[in-house]
Order: sequence, then structure tokens, then C-alpha cells
Amino acid sequence: MTRYKKTDPHSFTLGTTITFELLKAKPHTAQKVFFHSKLAQNAAYEELVKLCERHHIPTEKNDKVFSVLSAKENCFAIGMFTKYQDPLQKWQNHIVLDRPSNMGNLGTIIRTAAGFGMGGIALIKPAADLFDPKVVRASMGAVFRTPFAYFESFEDYLAFAGSENIYLFMLDGATPLPEVTPAAPFSLVFGNEAAGLPAHYKKYGTPVVIPHSAAIDSLNLDNAVSIGLYEFTKSSFTK
Amino acid sequence: MTRYKKTDPHSFTLGTTITFELLKAKPHTAQKVFFHSKLAQNAAYEELVKLCERHHIPTEKNDKVFSVLSAKENCFAIGMFTKYQDPLQKWQNHIVLDRPSNMGNLGTIIRTAAGFGMGGIALIKPAADLFDPKVVRASMGAVFRTPFAYFESFEDYLAFAGSENIYLFMLDGATPLPEVTPAAPFSLVFGNEAAGLPAHYKKYGTPVVIPHSAAIDSLNLDNAVSIGLYEFTKSSFTK
Repeated sequence: MTRYKKTDPHSFTLGTTITFELLKAKPHTAQKVFFHSKLAQNAAYEELVKLCERHHIPTEKNDKVFSVLSAKENCFAIGMFTKYQDPLQKWQNHIVLDRPSNMGNLGTIIRTAAGFGMGGIALIKPAADLFDPKVVRASMGAVFRTPFAYFESFEDYLAFAGSENIYLFMLDGATPLPEVTPAAPFSLVFGNEAAGLPAHYKKYGTPVVIPHSAAIDSLNLDNAVSIGLYEFTKSSFTK
Repeated sequence: MTRYKKTDPHSFTLGTTITFELLKAKPHTAQKVFFHSKLAQNAAYEELVKLCERHHIPTEKNDKVFSVLSAKENCFAIGMFTKYQDPLQKWQNHIVLDRPSNMGNLGTIIRTAAGFGMGGIALIKPAADLFDPKVVRASMGAVFRTPFAYFESFEDYLAFAGSENIYLFMLDGATPLPEVTPAAPFSLVFGNEAAGLPAHYKKYGTPVVIPHSAAIDSLNLDNAVSIGLYEFTKSSFTK
């Protein structure tokens, strides 16, 4: 067993809860589950073992794997899974991330997107690796229930999804978010953590700004995404 | 120089940008600024030196300090400052965090609160240390412009701020956030990352829920705070 690399055909769930999520959402991709000798043999453990048996997934007690794969001390179960496709559907609502670089942010955004019922995540390259164990962990396993696709350019995404209802979150967006009347299926587009969206993207849709004070340059990417998701979906979940 | 401890009378800004924020917002608290020998002698450096001279803050080239205080490799300036008081005013809008434990979250929340013009942060003990270098760093220096106060209990906070316009963010809150009509000055109250707010807090104000799908148990704390802040302030910053 070696440390995860982006080019590997497999990746890992580092931790009991995330391994559960893998076995519940994508059991057919699981190759093996490793247990640490320190894992408490409690009800959660029994259920993990039962899930592995049901899906014919081999298990192994092997502390060495943990020292190679996990820097965290409180990780006592690791799932190894084959990377898979879970394609976006063009008729659903998407979050589009333009060249996201931070893996923690990407994981959090995937989880929040699931929480607001998004149909999936589009990633414009170069982009952080959705299957990196850090992303998987930060998503708390939500990644296993989130369709996704990578695109070479934003124009490629538009060719796939169509040019209707594209909302571009920009610091100098002309329309304040509270004044937007959402039309679906929509694409909420957010720029890279450091650079934001390129100015010329404006021509592709409705540039939207989240109103805030001048005390900060911009919001955190994952906070901006969560605010956008809230505003666009609030009528769907209220009662 | 030793590693930061919560009981120290001083703390540190780890990085050039945050040290700038310290010198601009709270120069009288700065005791010293350390430069790493690898710091580029560019315009930013010149300006830092000028700020130190203007405020009679001693500077020192000392690479050792960096190896003790900073694990990050890209930290080339460190400010050392005396901890200070910057008291909350009861007539302003507050974010109230009930026993927050994650330092990164606390820093991000401080920054977002500044971005939405909040009057300050109330922390109900036990709470993460606002002056920890990790919090200061995650706030990107916004901590230096944010009034704050610690309270022994939520009841102590109410005794200070009064019991009007208390909004309690709870998973089973009766009022969906989009239906709240904000009255000011308000207090937006959020629970601990793992446990949320205790059920008996409901009697203290209006329990509010952020509508989301059943796909996740709850939102990240800093995402929940940013959504709450957006909804409560959106009429203030629009145009």
C-alpha cells in the first residue's frame, strides 16, 4: 500500500463514518476495508462488518496501512475504492467551480451542495482532485452521492449544459443576489479562491454579487457558495 | 521565544498580510515585528518597515523565531502583540457562539462577521481562544477590527445584551430563516460544531431553521453563520 496519488485508479475513505457512507452509497466500488487493531468492537463496527459481508467486500486487520495512509490518530477504519463515473445530467441544477484549488473547500462545498439538493458539481480544469482522500473526508462522504464532471474549459461546460440560467458570482456583479429571480435548471458559477471569475465570463450569463461591507475583500469560497445555494433553493425547502 | 499558550499575555500574527492588518488596526498593541531572512525586500516589506517606524515598533531579523512559532513554510513576517480588550456594545448587532471549539471555524466566522458589518462576537465559555495564532490567521486579520467578549453562560450574555431580538439557529427551529423579519439590534446565536444549541435555549428567543434537504444532518458552522448573516443584513448592503 502506498500514499494516494491523483493518477491512482483507486482512492481511500479515512475514517469509520466516511467508510460507512462509501458502503451505503457506492458499495460496488469498494475493494477492501481495513480495520485498525484499536477500533472498538462496538455496534458500529458490527454494522460495518455486516455491510462488508453483504457486499462481499474483503476486510483486513492491518495497522501498517493506517500509518501509511492516515496522518490522523483517530482513524481506525479505511475503505479502499475504485474511482468511478457518476455523470452530471444537463437538466439538473449544478454548482460550477472554475479552477478550484483548495481540497478542504471542495469537500465542504460538495457536502453543502448535497444539503441543498443540487444535481451535481462541474469542475473546470485545472481543478482539485474530487477523489483525493482529503476532499472525500471534508465532504464527510457526501461525495459518494454527488454526480460530477470535469470540463477542459467553461465554454465546454456551456456546450454541455446550455447557456440558459447561468449565474456568475463576481465581486462586481451587476445584480445583487437578493434581487435575483431564480430560473431552473440553474448553474451557479464560482471562481477560484484567489482570483475569482475572469471578467470576460460576464457575457455568459447573469453576473451576481453577494452584498457585503467593504471591511473584507471577498467572502470565503465555501461561504459564498453556501449563501448562493441558500438563496436559490430557499423556496424549495420551506415547508 | 516559546510556542503560543492560551495563558500568555501576548500572541502572534503569522504572515505578512496579517501583520499588516495588526499594524493598521491595533498598532499600539504591537510589541515587535520579526522578519525572516528570506522575506523579499519589495514594496510590501518597505511599507511594513515604515509602519513599524511610524509606531516605534522594534523590528528584528531572526529566523529562529519562525521555526519555533510557525509550521508554515511561507511565513516570512511575524508580529508579536499584547492581548487587548475591545468590548462589545450592547446596542450593536452580535454573533453569539455557544461553546465554539474549532479555531479555523472561529477565525472564518470573525472574518465573515466583519464582512457583514456585525458589531462584534460574543463567546460563551468554554470557547476557543480568539487570540490563538490559528484563529488570527484564519480571520485574515479581521479579528483586529472585531469587538468581542467572553461570557460564563448564555444567561450572562442575555443579562448584558437584553432579551430582545434573540435568534437561535437550531435544527428544529420553528421559523424558517426566509420567513424571519429581522428586528435590530439583533443577536444571532449558533451552537457548538458537534452538539448545536441546547434544546432549552428555545425559551430565550426565536428559534430559526435554515431550510435544507435531508441529505446532510446539518450545515458546517461557518456556512450556517454566513447564511444567517446574509439573510439578516441583505437589505443593508443592497445598493
